[in-house]
Amino acid sequence: MSLREDADCIIQYALSQVQPEKAVRRALANRPLPPGRIVLVAIGKAAWQMAATATEILGSRLSGGIVITKYGHSRGVLPPLLIREAGHPIPDENTFHATREACELVSGLTVNDLVLFLVSGGGSALFEDPLIPPADLFRATEELLARGADIREMNTVRKRFSAVKGGKFALLCQPAAILNVVLSDILGDPLDMIASGPTFPDTSTCEEALAIARKYRLSMTEEMVSCLKVETPKALPVAETIVGSNVRTLCEAASTSAASLGYQVTLLTDCLDCEAREAGRFLGVIARSHQNTRRSLAFLAGGETVVHITGSGLGGRNQELVLAASLSLPETQTTAIFSFGSDGTDGPTDAAGGYVDSESFPTTEDALAALAANDSYHALKSCGGLILTGPTGTNVNDLAVILIKR
Amino acid sequence: MSLREDADCIIQYALSQVQPEKAVRRALANRPLPPGRIVLVAIGKAAWQMAATATEILGSRLSGGIVITKYGHSRGVLPPLLIREAGHPIPDENTFHATREACELVSGLTVNDLVLFLVSGGGSALFEDPLIPPADLFRATEELLARGADIREMNTVRKRFSAVKGGKFALLCQPAAILNVVLSDILGDPLDMIASGPTFPDTSTCEEALAIARKYRLSMTEEMVSCLKVETPKALPVAETIVGSNVRTLCEAASTSAASLGYQVTLLTDCLDCEAREAGRFLGVIARSHQNTRRSLAFLAGGETVVHITGSGLGGRNQELVLAASLSLPETQTTAIFSFGSDGTDGPTDAAGGYVDSESFPTTEDALAALAANDSYHALKSCGGLILTGPTGTNVNDLAVILIKR
Repeated sequence: MSLREDADCIIQYALSQVQPEKAVRRALANRPLPPGRIVLVAIGKAAWQMAATATEILGSRLSGGIVITKYGHSRGVLPPLLIREAGHPIPDENTFHATREACELVSGLTVNDLVLFLVSGGGSALFEDPLIPPADLFRATEELLARGADIREMNTVRKRFSAVKGGKFALLCQPAAILNVVLSDILGDPLDMIASGPTFPDTSTCEEALAIARKYRLSMTEEMVSCLKVETPKALPVAETIVGSNVRTLCEAASTSAASLGYQVTLLTDCLDCEAREAGRFLGVIARSHQNTRRSLAFLAGGETVVHITGSGLGGRNQELVLAASLSLPETQTTAIFSFGSDGTDGPTDAAGGYVDSESFPTTEDALAALAANDSYHALKSCGGLILTGPTGTNVNDLAVILIKR
Repeated sequence: MSLREDADCIIQYALSQVQPEKAVRRALANRPLPPGRIVLVAIGKAAWQMAATATEILGSRLSGGIVITKYGHSRGVLPPLLIREAGHPIPDENTFHATREACELVSGLTVNDLVLFLVSGGGSALFEDPLIPPADLFRATEELLARGADIREMNTVRKRFSAVKGGKFALLCQPAAILNVVLSDILGDPLDMIASGPTFPDTSTCEEALAIARKYRLSMTEEMVSCLKVETPKALPVAETIVGSNVRTLCEAASTSAASLGYQVTLLTDCLDCEAREAGRFLGVIARSHQNTRRSLAFLAGGETVVHITGSGLGGRNQELVLAASLSLPETQTTAIFSFGSDGTDGPTDAAGGYVDSESFPTTEDALAALAANDSYHALKSCGGLILTGPTGTNVNDLAVILIKR
């Protein structure tokens, strides 16, 4: 098999192992079920697929529930579940209505009952019931964003304007038990951040929320100020969480696949977060330093790099990483470097990522010019270096791989 | 032993193995010598130490030779060698005079003779006999530098203004054989770049030199234009080169030391060249991703990172790398990250590098502020995180290390 065929094989196998269906199957396999009712609430872009698998596994044990996903993401009915589509990334009236339906479904449960909460990327926008007029919520979000608040600061404030976020949905489920199954799209799986943590104890405090509002001079109504002063749950009754798939699952699957193809695998990290082009340079020199190996080697790095755009070209973080790595790619040996987003998209392009090997890579001049212009897409396209998967139906961050074949 | 003691042990052992003496001993050990005369020419900041070891090994077989080193770097007489000190980094009259003495020493040799050419960092400034007035050479250097020429472009032009660089000294040695022993301070050991390659075939051409002069609008006398049109040697008679020590030697020695302390070692690369703080972030997340290991682990990365200074603080590339890595340092396990320059200096500081571990590291706030100001020195100093070795007498780039101890 060629290096490119090895790469495609690894990509396909890794993607197959992080599908929402697999995550749910892993979480529910051989699991003792409670004696009472089981209510399912699935939120996020992969909500329908997760719910479909749970419905299949639980069969008649499933009492009811609701799926809230993005417009166009439902694939049909799933009795006995309600299927709702709503706005993403901006919540709309359908979001609020569907969220209130979810709250009604989990009310009146007993200690013998279970809420099965299935969470995937996009859940924060798709699960919301604001305590303040939506217009005030949107304005607050815009103000914080425009004044430089980071995602943690935004969420600390917004959790307090919500009837369900920051652990408040878990209070509504009481006294039923909660089983969270998470398809994580945030590095390190910070559970109170994923979908703004409707069923997780909140780690932020009122003091922090008020300090952030002061820091960014947030304009607030009296009602909003009151909300910021109400503390979120700091401990929750029996709630269990299973991270069904995350970037580590992606790395482990790629590792299994590479090993079966004869590569000796080193997993470098599953939380890569640095500048894309610098990560690429680092991976490039790792490849260069292992050219004298007598065994086939694979190095894996999962995570999500960042790009600070200064040029006007087309590209994505995975493509830019690969383009930078190509500058250090040894030409004399059989080496490939590739990187892709598990959701099948990389930046505003039709590619999932980029691929170069010792036989097909941009010239140094082209690569440097394309890096300067943030134009990795065209530089890679011209040497057949795009990875095209189409939408994959999942999202557990990115994976970068070096293959050195003997 | 504590993590810091392990680190100090690894640093000391690695430095001991890249001393100039070791490099020469490795190169000359059990080596058949030619029947005729042996003339030694040693240039660079470690020239005296390299020559001293060669003198000891060769004994009465050494016919004569010369040591050209930086002012203050001679440690006394080494009969039968001439000892010369000269300007560095700016060549002066003593440089030119000593270089001409070297040229005389190698003239009139036969096919039975050997020139032992010992090269270390600083050799480019310390070995020069210009074909043009020195004032013209200095002005050309300044013009190229001010107009943004890189080191390869500078050398391509300057080799042609020199009587010894770009392989021309090798022509003077003919028909004697040449044995080059190199203590390399440039990543990848590009032999025609180290000390501007007096004894190596030159890879640059007249066309390139003339194009560079045009590109930077270099002002030249007629004499200078003529020099640029004379081609450098593209092939040379029997000349052999031994890289006695380089950054790989440093990495391998550190690897041996870490293994003997019980660590399972992964050598990531020996040509790390990316932005210091991004390399640090990458190493930080590698450390974080291996916290569940059951064995003690060490990861090594040799090379030389770069810093783009925007702040007015004090620091160096090794200290900045470590400071950035400290942001990802897991606090719950026994982990250390350190990085140091093998010459014992890191930027304009008295430190060789930086060290952090799970017990002693700057707060996130302090680290971010210090990174923004390029002030790694003070941030590390305040938590006991400086590595202080003093001048080490050698220079083979830098080494960064992660230790995870079980």
